[in-house]
Amino acid sequence: MKAILNHRSIRKFKNNPIDDTLLNDILHAGTRASTTGNMQVYSIIVTKSDEVKQQLAPCHFNQAMVTQAPVVLTFCADFNRFNRWCMLRNAKPGYDNFLSFFTAAIDALLVAQNVCIAAEHNGLGICYLGTTTYTAAKIIDVLKLPVGVVPVTTVVLGYPDEAPDMSDRLPLASILHQEIYQDYSDGDIDQIYQHKESLALTKKLLEENQKETLAQVFTDNRYTLKDNVAFSKALLEVLRQQGFMNNDRIE
Amino acid sequence: MKAILNHRSIRKFKNNPIDDTLLNDILHAGTRASTTGNMQVYSIIVTKSDEVKQQLAPCHFNQAMVTQAPVVLTFCADFNRFNRWCMLRNAKPGYDNFLSFFTAAIDALLVAQNVCIAAEHNGLGICYLGTTTYTAAKIIDVLKLPVGVVPVTTVVLGYPDEAPDMSDRLPLASILHQEIYQDYSDGDIDQIYQHKESLALTKKLLEENQKETLAQVFTDNRYTLKDNVAFSKALLEVLRQQGFMNNDRIE
Repeated sequence: MKAILNHRSIRKFKNNPIDDTLLNDILHAGTRASTTGNMQVYSIIVTKSDEVKQQLAPCHFNQAMVTQAPVVLTFCADFNRFNRWCMLRNAKPGYDNFLSFFTAAIDALLVAQNVCIAAEHNGLGICYLGTTTYTAAKIIDVLKLPVGVVPVTTVVLGYPDEAPDMSDRLPLASILHQEIYQDYSDGDIDQIYQHKESLALTKKLLEENQKETLAQVFTDNRYTLKDNVAFSKALLEVLRQQGFMNNDRIE
Repeated sequence: MKAILNHRSIRKFKNNPIDDTLLNDILHAGTRASTTGNMQVYSIIVTKSDEVKQQLAPCHFNQAMVTQAPVVLTFCADFNRFNRWCMLRNAKPGYDNFLSFFTAAIDALLVAQNVCIAAEHNGLGICYLGTTTYTAAKIIDVLKLPVGVVPVTTVVLGYPDEAPDMSDRLPLASILHQEIYQDYSDGDIDQIYQHKESLALTKKLLEENQKETLAQVFTDNRYTLKDNVAFSKALLEVLRQQGFMNNDRIE
């Protein structure tokens, strides 16, 4: 629980490498996560070499932590291994569709979160990189991912060289719905975001971004329609290329 | 770590209810998970009433645990709350696209896994229900999820009334790839699946399903092409209906 409750994303790491036994224990903990039908339709690409980190860096918009962290883990939805097994066992796999991609992505993400908690429990710091889905095609190229494999998230891992404050969160009650979804009134929204909007961090962001409201920092600067549309098209194209969009195939 | 390493899916629960304070602590632990840009684009629907559980049961193929478990949690990708905030703050949200859905789904899944680990740490048992993505449209109907909200997974929660063995897993090395993806030879596949195929559970499944190979149990009975194609179409239609497939919108 302590590891969960003390989570902070760490973006600056010490030079110390991660011991192989420790890394293995952490990755093993990952594999104890629930997995659909015990199929384990995921893979983890472990990057330690400077050469591959340098190639991955632009996929993650050259954030310094990618080359600085001793280990970069790319979590992939992976039906390739399972499909190959089926074909060797006289079974016809039907996993070249969107549902199968999403099933495998769920598997990969639950494993990723187990790995992060196990890492933090062992004194390491982690940061998720949202860029993985934006530049999946490039990552596929760098990591030589075959058809049936799509990267869904990346985690950098190492000993923390910073001690950031814990991030703010919305009031718990505001993200919970009892029995059925209770839609938000304008008053609810004001109340839910009041604390976040009052933070010193928010004031700093408004000044830095020259915006009137924090929401505008998100819509106009951080997560724009233009980028989201471009990334959506690219990600759907990746799903097609990697063999997950044959949603009309019949036997 | 103990909670992670001892995970078993629990499908039979005692009658004891879960104390509200404990449930709140567990859900709070959920919200400490990493979230893209600290947007928290997820919601959790907490079902305790018999009435709603009865309505959810068919969405989960009437598995007994849905009505038997004291608490059912439906984890949703949710941009509705964030979009409403943007609109009240003179900001134009650009989150009605596939990338945004997937971002929100990642958020929801990391929260779900934190909740499960926190629950297990506190002596509860959990089971994920893969059926959520198969019948998302029905769940949306039962839980009254508005546009911008899509259920991505469901977890049943309660005090265990069974003590199943730990599930087998593939050898750790077989799901890891050092630096770049090393594709599998036929020999690799044989070796990776050898242990699983030798289990008593496998023999039992072959008999029950009248199949030659374990892979055929998956392809012909459990996760068939026909079902996957139907569920893929249904899930993509849900994404469209819930406003996440406007991938060509420009301002």
